[in-house]
Amino acid sequence: MRILVTNDDGIDSPGIMALATALKEIGDVVVVAPDRQQSAVGHALTVSSPLRAVQFHRDNQLFGWAVDGTPADCVKLAFSSLLTDAVDLVVSGINHGYNTAINVLYSGTVSAATEGMLLGVPSIAVSLGTFSWEADMTVAAQTAQYVASRYFELGIPKNTLLNVNIPALPAEDIKGIKITQQGHGEWIDKYEERFDPMGKPYYWIRGEYRNLDGDNRSDDVAVEQGYIAITPITFKLTDYDTMNKLREIF
Amino acid sequence: MRILVTNDDGIDSPGIMALATALKEIGDVVVVAPDRQQSAVGHALTVSSPLRAVQFHRDNQLFGWAVDGTPADCVKLAFSSLLTDAVDLVVSGINHGYNTAINVLYSGTVSAATEGMLLGVPSIAVSLGTFSWEADMTVAAQTAQYVASRYFELGIPKNTLLNVNIPALPAEDIKGIKITQQGHGEWIDKYEERFDPMGKPYYWIRGEYRNLDGDNRSDDVAVEQGYIAITPITFKLTDYDTMNKLREIF
Repeated sequence: MRILVTNDDGIDSPGIMALATALKEIGDVVVVAPDRQQSAVGHALTVSSPLRAVQFHRDNQLFGWAVDGTPADCVKLAFSSLLTDAVDLVVSGINHGYNTAINVLYSGTVSAATEGMLLGVPSIAVSLGTFSWEADMTVAAQTAQYVASRYFELGIPKNTLLNVNIPALPAEDIKGIKITQQGHGEWIDKYEERFDPMGKPYYWIRGEYRNLDGDNRSDDVAVEQGYIAITPITFKLTDYDTMNKLREIF
Repeated sequence: MRILVTNDDGIDSPGIMALATALKEIGDVVVVAPDRQQSAVGHALTVSSPLRAVQFHRDNQLFGWAVDGTPADCVKLAFSSLLTDAVDLVVSGINHGYNTAINVLYSGTVSAATEGMLLGVPSIAVSLGTFSWEADMTVAAQTAQYVASRYFELGIPKNTLLNVNIPALPAEDIKGIKITQQGHGEWIDKYEERFDPMGKPYYWIRGEYRNLDGDNRSDDVAVEQGYIAITPITFKLTDYDTMNKLREIF
């Protein structure tokens, strides 16, 4: 099995190192990832400027390609230019921070998996529920390896990706895997207004996420309860009920 | 009616000028838009740096706020900091270029409407099928005005936005409005490999979009046939069939 590993925290993050190491035990891993932090980039593409890709070393060994673009750029460029052999699976992560509920829309981690899926390759996004750079990645890496190794027996359709969220808990406190639905939450946006030395204002976002979901089957609730949440995600965006209603008007 | 107008082509684009002008006939318009081109930014947010917002003039008149961020940034910052009064409707556009099918995922225009919707405000994205900066915006602006003026009698649910795509045709060649579903298409990615004066490679995307949909009810097909396509879009991303299947396995 040939696996493309990418992320949005950057190729030098602990998360992608743990992920690549775990996946090397079950397949050939090639890493193509952003050369720096790309959080909250959504499904952005770089179109009005060119991309650079350079070989990146970790611990004196070639680790992969560092691209000065977004996670979606990395996947597109990998498939069309950097890689010579076909890829069986795309795994994006391990993200520092959950990508549950509406956060999927903002997530660079999920967008890389989405791009893999759009290009016809089975894809998995993996996120861990902590922003700490020193977090223990063991459970998350093992989970990614487990899901990747079983992926092809699960019968996931071509237009669906798996969005995996893992609580930042010691292995013994994890209650197991739960198959979940996308939860319902909201961001309460606050922009701090500050003033530069010239007295001119600038605004810095400091949102607060609120889980609005009490449903046991939702990703947010499952991770809160100590479960690993796996949500199958697809981008069929049409609201058919409203479509049918509008057809009676227009 | 108080309307927030934004876009992804930048506050100085012809599209947003035409849109704001048309909407001023039916409501109070406030413009908060990116200070430069932000195409294909997806649902990106600026989180690791602050935002600036400055007043922007056109034709010696105050036109709105220019923000050095993405379309989603503009909507969030407008609602939380820049605007003092409540907004009834967000209209994003007029984009230069269609936002149909999977292009919705890459679209900054749609992401602004998505952000409005997530913040609880009815939202519309408007796109015109040409990249020409000199294109005639009359039909698109009239369409935006028409849809906005009728919005509140249509019974659109809170979690749904309207994605409007308009063919770049003279008014007499437009066949009418069609309520559509999100079509099915794909990008064939090609990155041109070029070499800088030092002989080092760089890569520039030159994708080609292919409509793979023959269904008359799809947005891509409708605009090709000369119809204005209105697709109700929602972000309920769970693949429930697969979720239920996976629950039998895990």
